[in-house]
Amino acid sequence: MTSSTMRAVVFDHELRFVPDYPLRKIMPGWALIRVLTAGICKTDMELMKGYKEFHGILGHEFIGVIEQCDDAHNINKRVSGEINAGCGQCEWCANGLGRHCTNRRVLGILDLDGCMADYCMLPVNNLHEIPDSIPDHRAILIEPLSAACEILEQVKFKGSERVIVLGGGRLGILCAWVLTTVVTDVTLIGHHPEKLNLAKWRHLKTAHGADEVEAGADIVVEATGSGEGITEAMSLCRPRGTIVLKSTLASQGKLNLSPLVVNEQRLVGSRCGQFKDGFQMLESYPDMPLDRLITARYPIEKALKAFERAARPDALKVLLEVS
Amino acid sequence: MTSSTMRAVVFDHELRFVPDYPLRKIMPGWALIRVLTAGICKTDMELMKGYKEFHGILGHEFIGVIEQCDDAHNINKRVSGEINAGCGQCEWCANGLGRHCTNRRVLGILDLDGCMADYCMLPVNNLHEIPDSIPDHRAILIEPLSAACEILEQVKFKGSERVIVLGGGRLGILCAWVLTTVVTDVTLIGHHPEKLNLAKWRHLKTAHGADEVEAGADIVVEATGSGEGITEAMSLCRPRGTIVLKSTLASQGKLNLSPLVVNEQRLVGSRCGQFKDGFQMLESYPDMPLDRLITARYPIEKALKAFERAARPDALKVLLEVS
Repeated sequence: MTSSTMRAVVFDHELRFVPDYPLRKIMPGWALIRVLTAGICKTDMELMKGYKEFHGILGHEFIGVIEQCDDAHNINKRVSGEINAGCGQCEWCANGLGRHCTNRRVLGILDLDGCMADYCMLPVNNLHEIPDSIPDHRAILIEPLSAACEILEQVKFKGSERVIVLGGGRLGILCAWVLTTVVTDVTLIGHHPEKLNLAKWRHLKTAHGADEVEAGADIVVEATGSGEGITEAMSLCRPRGTIVLKSTLASQGKLNLSPLVVNEQRLVGSRCGQFKDGFQMLESYPDMPLDRLITARYPIEKALKAFERAARPDALKVLLEVS
Repeated sequence: MTSSTMRAVVFDHELRFVPDYPLRKIMPGWALIRVLTAGICKTDMELMKGYKEFHGILGHEFIGVIEQCDDAHNINKRVSGEINAGCGQCEWCANGLGRHCTNRRVLGILDLDGCMADYCMLPVNNLHEIPDSIPDHRAILIEPLSAACEILEQVKFKGSERVIVLGGGRLGILCAWVLTTVVTDVTLIGHHPEKLNLAKWRHLKTAHGADEVEAGADIVVEATGSGEGITEAMSLCRPRGTIVLKSTLASQGKLNLSPLVVNEQRLVGSRCGQFKDGFQMLESYPDMPLDRLITARYPIEKALKAFERAARPDALKVLLEVS
């Protein structure tokens, strides 16, 4: 570190590339991380529409190298980081569920500058050293992959269920891939033929619309990122079935939940997962074709172009190369 | 039976009392029931706003006497009836879950004339003889009471949970009463002081608004019958807690479910229960003060006045006396 400023991608009513953003001092127990690569996520787009009223440096998916922290042994480690920085004091934090701490800050989402910059900061406890066997271009997807793995922690699968995943974007594809590791009958529904083609892996079936699949699925994962997804999920799910809700939106718009009541379905909100589960998945399935999900790479200075690319309907994961 | 017509309360774009509605022939396996008393339910109000696009005789809560059916032993029995008439052929029906049959008809709600008339019809298998120990004025609440009991079938309670019930109407009160039989810490939140006063039973606590109670409840039951209820439920429920959704509405209006995702809450749609559970509750708790919930009684000819009374904010259960 030689400078007191850094390059950063800042959202403050509008998106800007800022060449000289001030670099803050790290707190005890936290690490300063030099960012190698950052990913653009659908949630970033929602933040720009007003979700969480966030202002600051965007970004919560990254690979980086620890440059400063209390314990010198950690310096130079290649890491990724869980995005919720809990208070460390409450019952949730004590039980390892700091992601539900009510006083938490969230990297690039809530009261904490994100990783689309030369440097970002997180508690050392949030960081995971990336196993040498996992290259950067696979590790960069650890955050959404872990979010997909979270479903396995929340819903118990026998393996014989019929599962539908709604949403052919990167999160939908990752959820579908993770589910094929535990269930034999999984169908991914998306509207974009190229993305569906990329999604083909193991025994995953794909369909271009809900009319191509039989309703009455035992479990439906809603990862469309659109307000209509939940209505479609209710109609595809059997009575007393389970819907896993993955999309976080600024608003679902008008919604009629009476089918959920009439059919006594369960709607399970599902968010971030634990990186250890994601890394374990990567090590258990080295053939999971994560690299197919990388649509394009841009240098951080071209962040606005990268966001434009990420907003196009055919985009999956767009990366910012930082250093 | 001496007439081929009967008195009926019909909704067909508008609510009307019809003195000479045609009486239909019963089908094999069905019973013709002479209605003694019918209850007006919030769902009837929603049907009149367009829910389910229902047209026909309203009403799904009743006490009556069997007047015709295949088995003569059943004639003259005093009965109430479960409202979902399944096809009898499908897997759901075979498993005793005809209320989830996709081809079902629903008394006074879906493709089947209701009970606000001199006669109604239901499959004999739907009917339950009312134990002699239970008088009419308690038995008439069997349908909403069973719907409240359904929560106990869907959510497993340890007894130590903190539970909040949102909605001081009849369904909210019944849910709260049923929950006090299994949980020690139950609070009912309603806006109408008189109703809250009527609701006091056993160890039930009451509050006039969400600001009077601590958030972070383990389980929140949403029975407000209003679109805002679910948003309030999400904010009162702890992360990873359970919300039971009881209200069926024509529309919730605009809704933002992202708190459900972020806090990984579970939303459980909950509908009708089984009358056997309701009757068992009535027999186990003969002191459950159901009669407090009867606001007024009107002869069937005064149905329009009865509906006006039922629509007033202070109303709980309004009954139509038929014969």
